[in-house]
Amino acid sequence: MIPRYTPADFAELWSPARRYAVWLDVELAACEALEEAGLVPHGVAARIRAKGLVLDVGRIDTIERTTKHDVIAFLTHVEELAGDDARWLHRGMTSSDVLDSSLAILLRDAADKLLARCDRLTAALRKRAREHAKTPMIGRSHGIFAEPITFGLALAGHHAEMVRARARLESARQEIAVGKIAGAVGTYAHLSPAVEERALATLGLRPETVSTQIVARDRHAAYFAALALAAAGVERLATNVRHWQRSEVAEAEEAFTAGQKGSSAMPHKRNPVLSENLCGLARIVRAAVVPALEDVALWHERDISHSSVERMIGPDATATLAFMLERSAGLVEGLVVYADNARRNLDKAAELYFSEAVLLALVEAGMARQDAYLLVQRNAMRAWAGEGRFRDLLAADTDVMPKLGAAKLASLFNLDHALAHVPAILDRALA
Amino acid sequence: MIPRYTPADFAELWSPARRYAVWLDVELAACEALEEAGLVPHGVAARIRAKGLVLDVGRIDTIERTTKHDVIAFLTHVEELAGDDARWLHRGMTSSDVLDSSLAILLRDAADKLLARCDRLTAALRKRAREHAKTPMIGRSHGIFAEPITFGLALAGHHAEMVRARARLESARQEIAVGKIAGAVGTYAHLSPAVEERALATLGLRPETVSTQIVARDRHAAYFAALALAAAGVERLATNVRHWQRSEVAEAEEAFTAGQKGSSAMPHKRNPVLSENLCGLARIVRAAVVPALEDVALWHERDISHSSVERMIGPDATATLAFMLERSAGLVEGLVVYADNARRNLDKAAELYFSEAVLLALVEAGMARQDAYLLVQRNAMRAWAGEGRFRDLLAADTDVMPKLGAAKLASLFNLDHALAHVPAILDRALA
Amino acid sequence: MIPRYTPADFAELWSPARRYAVWLDVELAACEALEEAGLVPHGVAARIRAKGLVLDVGRIDTIERTTKHDVIAFLTHVEELAGDDARWLHRGMTSSDVLDSSLAILLRDAADKLLARCDRLTAALRKRAREHAKTPMIGRSHGIFAEPITFGLALAGHHAEMVRARARLESARQEIAVGKIAGAVGTYAHLSPAVEERALATLGLRPETVSTQIVARDRHAAYFAALALAAAGVERLATNVRHWQRSEVAEAEEAFTAGQKGSSAMPHKRNPVLSENLCGLARIVRAAVVPALEDVALWHERDISHSSVERMIGPDATATLAFMLERSAGLVEGLVVYADNARRNLDKAAELYFSEAVLLALVEAGMARQDAYLLVQRNAMRAWAGEGRFRDLLAADTDVMPKLGAAKLASLFNLDHALAHVPAILDRALA
Amino acid sequence: MIPRYTPADFAELWSPARRYAVWLDVELAACEALEEAGLVPHGVAARIRAKGLVLDVGRIDTIERTTKHDVIAFLTHVEELAGDDARWLHRGMTSSDVLDSSLAILLRDAADKLLARCDRLTAALRKRAREHAKTPMIGRSHGIFAEPITFGLALAGHHAEMVRARARLESARQEIAVGKIAGAVGTYAHLSPAVEERALATLGLRPETVSTQIVARDRHAAYFAALALAAAGVERLATNVRHWQRSEVAEAEEAFTAGQKGSSAMPHKRNPVLSENLCGLARIVRAAVVPALEDVALWHERDISHSSVERMIGPDATATLAFMLERSAGLVEGLVVYADNARRNLDKAAELYFSEAVLLALVEAGMARQDAYLLVQRNAMRAWAGEGRFRDLLAADTDVMPKLGAAKLASLFNLDHALAHVPAILDRALA
Repeated sequence: MIPRYTPADFAELWSPARRYAVWLDVELAACEALEEAGLVPHGVAARIRAKGLVLDVGRIDTIERTTKHDVIAFLTHVEELAGDDARWLHRGMTSSDVLDSSLAILLRDAADKLLARCDRLTAALRKRAREHAKTPMIGRSHGIFAEPITFGLALAGHHAEMVRARARLESARQEIAVGKIAGAVGTYAHLSPAVEERALATLGLRPETVSTQIVARDRHAAYFAALALAAAGVERLATNVRHWQRSEVAEAEEAFTAGQKGSSAMPHKRNPVLSENLCGLARIVRAAVVPALEDVALWHERDISHSSVERMIGPDATATLAFMLERSAGLVEGLVVYADNARRNLDKAAELYFSEAVLLALVEAGMARQDAYLLVQRNAMRAWAGEGRFRDLLAADTDVMPKLGAAKLASLFNLDHALAHVPAILDRALA
Repeated sequence: MIPRYTPADFAELWSPARRYAVWLDVELAACEALEEAGLVPHGVAARIRAKGLVLDVGRIDTIERTTKHDVIAFLTHVEELAGDDARWLHRGMTSSDVLDSSLAILLRDAADKLLARCDRLTAALRKRAREHAKTPMIGRSHGIFAEPITFGLALAGHHAEMVRARARLESARQEIAVGKIAGAVGTYAHLSPAVEERALATLGLRPETVSTQIVARDRHAAYFAALALAAAGVERLATNVRHWQRSEVAEAEEAFTAGQKGSSAMPHKRNPVLSENLCGLARIVRAAVVPALEDVALWHERDISHSSVERMIGPDATATLAFMLERSAGLVEGLVVYADNARRNLDKAAELYFSEAVLLALVEAGMARQDAYLLVQRNAMRAWAGEGRFRDLLAADTDVMPKLGAAKLASLFNLDHALAHVPAILDRALA
Repeated sequence: MIPRYTPADFAELWSPARRYAVWLDVELAACEALEEAGLVPHGVAARIRAKGLVLDVGRIDTIERTTKHDVIAFLTHVEELAGDDARWLHRGMTSSDVLDSSLAILLRDAADKLLARCDRLTAALRKRAREHAKTPMIGRSHGIFAEPITFGLALAGHHAEMVRARARLESARQEIAVGKIAGAVGTYAHLSPAVEERALATLGLRPETVSTQIVARDRHAAYFAALALAAAGVERLATNVRHWQRSEVAEAEEAFTAGQKGSSAMPHKRNPVLSENLCGLARIVRAAVVPALEDVALWHERDISHSSVERMIGPDATATLAFMLERSAGLVEGLVVYADNARRNLDKAAELYFSEAVLLALVEAGMARQDAYLLVQRNAMRAWAGEGRFRDLLAADTDVMPKLGAAKLASLFNLDHALAHVPAILDRALA
Repeated sequence: MIPRYTPADFAELWSPARRYAVWLDVELAACEALEEAGLVPHGVAARIRAKGLVLDVGRIDTIERTTKHDVIAFLTHVEELAGDDARWLHRGMTSSDVLDSSLAILLRDAADKLLARCDRLTAALRKRAREHAKTPMIGRSHGIFAEPITFGLALAGHHAEMVRARARLESARQEIAVGKIAGAVGTYAHLSPAVEERALATLGLRPETVSTQIVARDRHAAYFAALALAAAGVERLATNVRHWQRSEVAEAEEAFTAGQKGSSAMPHKRNPVLSENLCGLARIVRAAVVPALEDVALWHERDISHSSVERMIGPDATATLAFMLERSAGLVEGLVVYADNARRNLDKAAELYFSEAVLLALVEAGMARQDAYLLVQRNAMRAWAGEGRFRDLLAADTDVMPKLGAAKLASLFNLDHALAHVPAILDRALA
């Protein structure tokens, strides 16, 4: 998490202050559940809450330098502030009861923030897709002119992908909203499933099915995989923007703000730097998946190797994806579309994209597919080589005309026909 | 996919013969839908089906060496076998309509096979967990003796993890069971959404929301992520078997078959080689996730860079996971559990795992938590150093006894109490 | 390793027949060294060699199904063929002495084959770079026209990168050419460093500094990292070919063979499919690095988790890179360069690439850099918007002309000057 | 880079203040070279240096918010401080001339710091290996008792691995110490190779062979691969410490400082948390390799997607590895070795590790290897099952004794013989 790529709410979410505040929430929720179960005297949690404790991050750090144990340092500090009642906190619990339930809260809250940003991005894609539903452009496969699409169709495809990404994030959010208050090895030796359920419900979490010392790490790995999948969707969008903006294509461009400078040496340049940046950041989010998977196979009832990994990838991957979703939403909202250039490129394709219509017509007229293919290819190749317009070459081809006739041939060169189903696709995708 | 790690049904699933057979299924399903839509004369598909075509893989390969295009080679061969009717096949379609719908079928079928193997593994875990529900063993965190668990509890944790893995595979199966019959750039230029829907329904697939030339690759990336998550669950299980089997622990052992040899140099050795092998294979399945994520951001309406990746990781990751699930199911079914050794190790822990009970009793008796901690630690450290039994040292500690009394102290050293909630956890997990 | 991407010599290199032949080489080399040390009677190895053993792969597989141990199965079969002398083989050795020394031989030989293919690729790049040393094209940063380069310069950059890749492969080859004949835990309990050194020298290997049961796996991880770095170099080259070939750019094109078909639907298409394929394969080679790194931290004196990984990534990564180097060499050799199109694109850049020359001239004439920047940008933006030729707009700008004058301005628009140092760069790179 | 895992010198190295200071170094070195070449008036750099500029990070950030270009913001600020002379800075250069040369300096300096920490770790390993050269312990393969080694031998193996890791870092340092002062697309359009060479020499860098707009990224990928290889070496060491410390083994232990607490629930616990932490951090360093490889294939003469990646993995991977090397050096220096426990575990192996000596003696006495194997295994299995001491069972075996005789048999059970070559290995490794 570096300032450059960290939204403010994520800087706050992953701050030490927030972390310790959530730890206290967990301790108090557990305490209340223990009170209800008669394992802790009534009123302890209420009295501590009433004090409105303000935890001192620096003080906890100082204590940790001696104890070399963060939760004990935290509890010691709480005892400093809350006095005698504090000895009832953490009763029968292990550090991971606090840490893992807290991590679940933070990752769940991060997911909620990501979902909201997904919504902004899909809204932008939906709006721009509708706006350009009928803006024709040449579709490209392998970077080579293929058949016509519309700009709106391309955006609708990105919309559909981000809707899927959102669904996976939603599912990962459910999987991660799981805590544990089950003691040192998950046996509730000094607790009970009922206490856990009550405490976690207060926090908006469900209990882990079978805890070891910790919540199982396949849940976290699934979470990071969902982040990477969303990032990959943004990467595809950004990759396409980069293609659309390249000098020879010039069909769309990132909005360029007043005062912005594209190059220290070449003042005329307007570079798709936001999109390139998004492609780089997707690599960062993606890179969290393998370490998260490596964290799953902990030894016996747990080892702590996952912890350092999560301290880094937890903030990094969530904040970076949040930044990506935000940036890409802004990118789509402000994207400058050059419909004229798109039309110009379409024209460059020299109507070769109607070759398939011709091919089908020849087959319908009785030719074997492979023969028809060769016939069409022959004329297409000549048109591509600049020896004439495709439709004119076909009209002049004595193997073609007897099969089709002039009227039929003319009818095949019809852009509206080629795009006739696009509105239905958009309706399906953007509903 | 190497023979050593490829189940027979996966060798068949990913064979060229099966691939081409599925291609033909897709072509014929599309043809029937086109017939119904009036775009192809009635009866074509039925006549071709009636011929019972036997495709010749070698012949297709030969043709491909000239065309350098696999689908065209396939169609050419079909035309050789089916004669004139074949010219109606592939009408208005692009290669990827066939390839991607076929890949969806193969990955969906692979998922079904994986789900069945998951079921065998979870059944084995459930059975053995029940069997050892009350077999006590020492729980270990950081590899250090912690508090007692049961062997059944450990297996129930693996069960819960594999149940989650199965649910993710099931979800990935739904996401991948999506084809397309939408033409060169997904616009249905010579087709229609209705034709696609009809054709795919025959094949048990749904249509892609918005196709480009291909089905979007985030679906495939999600699929491979689900495979890796399942593999990570197996890896955790295998890692624990390795720990249980190590010479000093000896709590469980892979079944050793007659004739098997552990070492060419040390004839007495019985090594957990199956489990080690599973850990290695988890790395292989995990390694497919990043390439699959890198495949998402294809250029414009598609580039073909994903294809070579999928040709390798598709068979490799699915077959390897199938092998892993099979092997781990057999491993669990045959696992030899040494309850006596588990008990012996538990005894070595010298009842220190009751330290928390003592700690809690001291707190209940009025001590501050941190004071009680130091008191317990003092005696625990001495017990650990071999200076006496933990309960005896506590009984002799003049700071402890006034707080607790002999009867209370004795009551704290109770294994049944420590494990009292285990049956409830198992019921929750194995229901 | 799938047939499609496996060169014939790599299919042979990684065949079971070759593997067992190398095992026998290692056993015989060790036997000779043991004979020399007086630990095995003289003449054993010579007599076995004289028999010209033809190992039966199927027979070894059959035996392994009982022993579940590949080296023991191999030795049993050798004993079947060689008779009584065979009992002296493997004397004091552990399986890994054979396996790891053999793997070193195979990976070393694979490296040699890769180095030879690197040489073909760098030769092709060198030749084509020289050929197009002076073919001007527009350089692009961020996909946006920047300043002129030459096609030869671009190729020279790829040449330099592949030369570095080759050096790393060479270094990895040295690191991997290390075997061990040191017994079960590397202590030479029934062997000696002298025997090991003698045996390995015969095989062209050096001894591991400190063996455990095996050769240390950081060597293998370094090897796979070197493969991935070479693959990344090929990926950059292929990515650029894809850009050069895209319809709007059309500056270079993969050679298209007679009979080849670009698309089943669009007969005019010539797609950069080889280059796209290379980009996909780079992901495969790259994906071997993390598993190889995960293999390093084996437990104690070894566990066998690395073995399954290496059985898959060893053949896959080496054969795939070999295929990539071969394919990319052919690609470069046959690349069709459209110098006219490159010139046309350069012209489209509208001489804006001379903006920096103008900027510098203004600074030299006394302006502050940021003022000059704004002045140049102002005119560049207008030229880019199609409001006139850049040089004309500057000539008409009353803030510019007093500083520069017409003659100076004209002198700044000089392509030869911009490319003056290119020959020197090529000399430096291709020497 | 999070405070918890960032050594102070790396926090400084990667601070904005240091970054801008290095940028200024590069600008001034280039300016001096330009002065020498007569392209900038003499004395400019000297006058700016004389002013002792103190750059204001906050001010540069403020300017960047308008320009959205960091180097232009930096130059604007320098102009604010240095006045008129500043307009000569950056003459003919592009931003990446500054950025990439600066990054080379920072990564080179990071490498130097890492090399120094490697030296501390290898020194610690060397010292402790010598100290325990003759401390016997049981070697383990697959976690199962194998043959005896010494603790010093195990450490010597780690030493050898870290020596190799150091050599790779050294080589990566050479590869990365490469800058460029070659202009917008590497053609020296307004510069010259001589100016570049002079400027870079001042900075301790060499020129890139062929620049595009930037230094080629395969160099950086190789650098991150070298970091990951070193981290993997530390991970293997840490994994072994974890095994040595586990309760049932207890052969070595991380030093436990006064006041440190192992567990909030179990006061007696001393957990190998430093080693577990190192295993987790290795995953983080390893995770930088793939993004770095993905950065290589930039488009045309560059895109900026690599930049965001490097902003994160540059500091993260170097600082984390530095922390790992430091922590692991401290770990080895303070490691508490329990030679008595090691001896106790060795005894538990019940002399079965002499089975190979017996096997060899039987073969020497004329038995076929496979027959001898079965004979030894038979007795070993019984000994392992607790039916008697291995040597006694053999002495009572009527198939064995006729071949060996009592004296020969007794001579085979000799620990000194088994470890006879260890001193030679240590001499070779630690020289």
